[in-house]
Amino acid sequence: MGLEGTSTNRPVRAVVLGQRSETVRRSNLSAVLRALHERGPQSRSELVTGTGLTRSAIRSLVGELALVGLVTEARAEARGRPGRPSPVVRPVPDGAVALALEIAVDSLAVALVGLGGDVLFLERVDRSRDRASVEATIEALVDLAGSAREVPGRADPLVGVGVAVVGVVRRADGSVAMAPNLGWKDVPLGALLATALAPTAPIAVANEADLGALAELRRGAAIGRDDILFVSGEVGVGGGLITGGRPLTGAAGYGGEIGHIPVRPDGRPCRCGSNGCWETEVGEEALLLRAGLPSDGGRAGVETVMHAAADGDTRALEALADVGRWLGIGLAGLVNVLDPRLVVLGGRLARIHPFVIGPVESELRRRALPAARALVSVVPARLGADAPLIGAAELAFEPLLADPVAVVAERGSALIEASA
Amino acid sequence: MGLEGTSTNRPVRAVVLGQRSETVRRSNLSAVLRALHERGPQSRSELVTGTGLTRSAIRSLVGELALVGLVTEARAEARGRPGRPSPVVRPVPDGAVALALEIAVDSLAVALVGLGGDVLFLERVDRSRDRASVEATIEALVDLAGSAREVPGRADPLVGVGVAVVGVVRRADGSVAMAPNLGWKDVPLGALLATALAPTAPIAVANEADLGALAELRRGAAIGRDDILFVSGEVGVGGGLITGGRPLTGAAGYGGEIGHIPVRPDGRPCRCGSNGCWETEVGEEALLLRAGLPSDGGRAGVETVMHAAADGDTRALEALADVGRWLGIGLAGLVNVLDPRLVVLGGRLARIHPFVIGPVESELRRRALPAARALVSVVPARLGADAPLIGAAELAFEPLLADPVAVVAERGSALIEASA
Repeated sequence: MGLEGTSTNRPVRAVVLGQRSETVRRSNLSAVLRALHERGPQSRSELVTGTGLTRSAIRSLVGELALVGLVTEARAEARGRPGRPSPVVRPVPDGAVALALEIAVDSLAVALVGLGGDVLFLERVDRSRDRASVEATIEALVDLAGSAREVPGRADPLVGVGVAVVGVVRRADGSVAMAPNLGWKDVPLGALLATALAPTAPIAVANEADLGALAELRRGAAIGRDDILFVSGEVGVGGGLITGGRPLTGAAGYGGEIGHIPVRPDGRPCRCGSNGCWETEVGEEALLLRAGLPSDGGRAGVETVMHAAADGDTRALEALADVGRWLGIGLAGLVNVLDPRLVVLGGRLARIHPFVIGPVESELRRRALPAARALVSVVPARLGADAPLIGAAELAFEPLLADPVAVVAERGSALIEASA
Repeated sequence: MGLEGTSTNRPVRAVVLGQRSETVRRSNLSAVLRALHERGPQSRSELVTGTGLTRSAIRSLVGELALVGLVTEARAEARGRPGRPSPVVRPVPDGAVALALEIAVDSLAVALVGLGGDVLFLERVDRSRDRASVEATIEALVDLAGSAREVPGRADPLVGVGVAVVGVVRRADGSVAMAPNLGWKDVPLGALLATALAPTAPIAVANEADLGALAELRRGAAIGRDDILFVSGEVGVGGGLITGGRPLTGAAGYGGEIGHIPVRPDGRPCRCGSNGCWETEVGEEALLLRAGLPSDGGRAGVETVMHAAADGDTRALEALADVGRWLGIGLAGLVNVLDPRLVVLGGRLARIHPFVIGPVESELRRRALPAARALVSVVPARLGADAPLIGAAELAFEPLLADPVAVVAERGSALIEASA
């Protein structure tokens, strides 16, 4: 239940060889629906170009998807070009919806996202950090999911549930191997949520930074990029890596734990049990301590630092610059290893971006190899703190996008019965 | 000219859909030839299972490859099973050969490798480190290549030239952006070698650690693995990364420069211009200095340390243990980021493996997250110092393996002319 197989910005090519077998139909419906979901409304001509399918195949596939309410077609306005304008095909937001949940350190969130990416509903509730027990979390998520599904008029067909969690997730079953900032270890989150929510659609669980990367790639700052590093900074630091257009998950889905690269091996103790991990230098506590505040000041403490920095307070500015230097040191190593085009700073790191980008770039100039450094930009996440939640929705759409045939067949039968 | 598109241990599935178009024939010939090259002789039945093609398709494809001398078929010995034994298909080593070249810091090497991976010829010549100018290197490589091709009876058809270089290589054109340990910067190596060698087959250039990883994956310690980290340690430290069965090259091919992760940001100056890069703690100079020898002692100095350690010399053993601790510190970060199944230590690091594995594992226990750490083993390269050279040969076979049609067509025409 990880990101394996999730698609990216690579062109969505359809299968063009061969007989019109069920396998080919599945691939082709998938290619058309994915193109519309990921890139928005397109003319039939654009779909022909994007998928490599013939005009007549596109007409027939779009017809099937329209019949079951996943897409609509409307006559395009003439654009002053000769010839009949190609009809515009649009994904129908309430034709298929994804339920997204997020477990952050001091908040929980829920969203309903429609096919094509429209956010139909979003709610985030703060919670105190000492109430992060597994049971309390599951209970609160069930409440949130219930309120999202009870919005008047929102009885849309659910196609998947995606869950972002600030922890190390085993891809195979959605269990959380460890989440030091929640105090969790070996929690079978996927199974627990499946029991508690009893949803009518599959549940998938993934690490929040992996999902933040997916969201920024599909809907945010990294559209069109194949090699990105998403750095999620809330309390600790997590990473979501896309390389060569694919999520880097590692052997079991545990990859991307960039917060635990040793950058100062004899440094401060880390919650993971080691010393001098990157997050001990750039995490929330490091910022607060450097600014002379209690290390357990949490988000309120960070707000205090941000306001002081905006007012020109020297100590706050120096604390941010120091975090920036260490941020740059860690990023330099990652740029040398991964050669990304784009580093996207998410969460708290997106907010402090203007204050840290100077020292970050200075360390990159000093420590990243020139060839790789010349290619990379460091930008804030466009989706802000909601990136992992939006990514969870994208993950939830995967079963439908990978194989629309089941849904099309089911809805088609219902239509036939209704008309009989 | 990098590793993009090189295949790995993933099952080689053939295209089974569709008409017998030229595209399908190309894919299917490629699948069969690749299976034989990468996994060795197989019965027709095994090829059926491995490629997903039908018996009759395999018969016909093997026939085509046999006709042009790329494979042979021989009746299998009966294995005590009922039924007619399936004929065994073998790649023909001198049916297609690859020329491999390697530019290391203090040696140059050449090999001729036959289809299926047999090493037909291999020569390595030491050279002094101060004679690594681009011109001298090219000249020496031309000599080496000439001697390899002049071996009596070795007029085998050349299908590609692969070059391993200890530097940062731009994938697009095989130019070396930088090679600090050679003193090279912006060297158009691919173009220079194409001119100097004027080979009858395409040249591809790649980083030596990337090629070491490919070699260990196909022919060495990592057969059957999808997520590996190859750590090449000669003078400096380089990395070859395979994730999810594919080489991680990064946006431009500059990825894998793990020697330049900052592990001690205020540490010793590095040749790259930064301080405290991983290779300043685990490279050759670090070992020599810790053992009380001159930092420019080179390979002879390393031999001195190895002999002293074998004799139980305390200082040598402590120097090696210290390198092991820093090796473990850097590996812990990489395990957290990449979640590999296997870390393969190459070059000098393969030799010191027995002396450093204790401290390495101790640091991994302390600093790698338990979930990822539990999955990973740290082993020496099976191909030793020749891994990058063998990887260069694998790279050189890629054009043939990806599209055998051109070679098959050319040789087929020659046969028809000869028989006319």
